[in-house]
Amino acid sequence: MDLYTYYRSTSSYRVRIALALKGLQPRHVPVNLLQGEHRQDAYLALNPQGRVPALRTDEGELLIQSPAIIEYLEERYPEPALLPADALQRAHQRGVAALIGCDIHPLHNVAVLNRLRALGIDEDGVNQWIAHWIGEGLKAVEALIGDEGFCCGPQPGLADVYLLPQLYAARRFEVDLSPFPRILRVERLALEHPAFRQAHPDVQADKPA
Amino acid sequence: MDLYTYYRSTSSYRVRIALALKGLQPRHVPVNLLQGEHRQDAYLALNPQGRVPALRTDEGELLIQSPAIIEYLEERYPEPALLPADALQRAHQRGVAALIGCDIHPLHNVAVLNRLRALGIDEDGVNQWIAHWIGEGLKAVEALIGDEGFCCGPQPGLADVYLLPQLYAARRFEVDLSPFPRILRVERLALEHPAFRQAHPDVQADKPA
Repeated sequence: MDLYTYYRSTSSYRVRIALALKGLQPRHVPVNLLQGEHRQDAYLALNPQGRVPALRTDEGELLIQSPAIIEYLEERYPEPALLPADALQRAHQRGVAALIGCDIHPLHNVAVLNRLRALGIDEDGVNQWIAHWIGEGLKAVEALIGDEGFCCGPQPGLADVYLLPQLYAARRFEVDLSPFPRILRVERLALEHPAFRQAHPDVQADKPA
Repeated sequence: MDLYTYYRSTSSYRVRIALALKGLQPRHVPVNLLQGEHRQDAYLALNPQGRVPALRTDEGELLIQSPAIIEYLEERYPEPALLPADALQRAHQRGVAALIGCDIHPLHNVAVLNRLRALGIDEDGVNQWIAHWIGEGLKAVEALIGDEGFCCGPQPGLADVYLLPQLYAARRFEVDLSPFPRILRVERLALEHPAFRQAHPDVQADKPA
């Protein structure tokens, strides 16, 4: 397997966590978003959307979109499971993941922030925008997750795979996380977990020195 | 089952299509977004995120987030299937759905557009914003779907469940769809399909007269 990844990309980070939790170690192919490698012909020929992550499977198929890649990993490499067996619990955990993946992260990815700047929004406005969407979203996540352990139980699962990269972004953007004690508990637990440590942006080979 | 829905909400429309394709007919509980019913205490007590859709299952559990609700329906009511059996084909179809659900729709939902207006963006700017994200996203979808039938084959599936509500929004916002002949073919097919017709905003009981 090959993972097309950028160390600081939220959705690449998600897939790295899912892979690490399952003990999978694909070759990493760095795609430098800062240098625009995702918009060059070589990468667009692989992924017409020009985004990371992408996963080349052992069969040679290229998969895109982190939610689809993670569900694929769960089906193809079921153990350890990221989702519980019960359909209602699966839906609850997928709901937390989708809230982060649809209602928080898309609103602060780099293309969106650059578009705001192109419309004349200054950096104060951009920072307010980021803080608003992350704050609103995490408030809902805080209400949906449990009182102990990881988001939805004693073992890390799909919701945690989405939450940790979102918190990394929140800290980069200096969003106040103090109103979210459950979320902060999950963050502390995860940052001590070997799979989450291995997937962290700070230890990626493509992180600039 | 009860579906909390608003006739014109993109993600409610998705869930209505998935339910109709599976022949399920939950009771509809309208939540009038224009009148702010989603922000009232009664609804927030059900769904702390205050968004539609939400699904109350036969067991009385409340599920939120359309991607999670649709995966639940697929697991709980597997026939007819929205996803093929093969893991790679499932990932491909989920990739198209996630592209629409993460990289297009979140950028033009009503809360986001109102936030742009609050930052001082005028209606021309808002319309440029909408056209940009829908155009970029549909360009990628056009490259990913097949040359005949629905998005990923002769029968409608998960990608179509996401695409049709996105096209309804594109037409509301008067986005030019002529560069996307494959997408337009899928739209024509779906608009003749009984499940898609039953789920359409125009025939919902909560549509204003």
